[in-house]
Amino acid sequence: MELNKLFKKSELIPAIIQDSTTNQVLMLAYMNHASLEKTLETGETWFWSRSRGELWHKGETSGHIQRVVEMYSDCDDDTLLIKVEQVGVACHTGEYSCFFNEILTK
Amino acid sequence: MELNKLFKKSELIPAIIQDSTTNQVLMLAYMNHASLEKTLETGETWFWSRSRGELWHKGETSGHIQRVVEMYSDCDDDTLLIKVEQVGVACHTGEYSCFFNEILTK
Repeated sequence: MELNKLFKKSELIPAIIQDSTTNQVLMLAYMNHASLEKTLETGETWFWSRSRGELWHKGETSGHIQRVVEMYSDCDDDTLLIKVEQVGVACHTGEYSCFFNEILTK
Repeated sequence: MELNKLFKKSELIPAIIQDSTTNQVLMLAYMNHASLEKTLETGETWFWSRSRGELWHKGETSGHIQRVVEMYSDCDDDTLLIKVEQVGVACHTGEYSCFFNEILTK
């Protein structure tokens, strides 16, 4: 697949990270072309940190890396869905998923 | 929950839409404060269409509405995860999920 077409509209696109076993959504982060290339090369997720303005190898400090299992783009080719094997937890707070703030629950 | 804090960094935030039964990720779209309010009021998803520059009631034309079952924000309060009951299909192409372009598969 030609990766350039993913970055036609924007240099940064959202990547949804999903647990490949349970399908739980773990986090959302942003990728640029370089971080997507690093992800495909290494088989682990790399993002672009908007706050630090640099490439970010998820888990480099914490050890909580994400091994890529499957990857898809959407119908508009401007969003990624990445299914991963999560080592440890996804969230820096210690929660397994970053989506723990309840706005509306069953 | 105070909704304003979700829009501190940006007027538009990504909303991940997930099937509440299967946990399949269906699509990603953007919400502003007004579309989030409409979503909470009506119990169906409303987004901000970046291409058309207007509020977008998902399924208004196609009938493929999304009934909200659960909603969460992430640890940074800048992304939403919304679990829905999807009527019909989520994607305008006729696919159930928008994420059908394979970049890497098992």
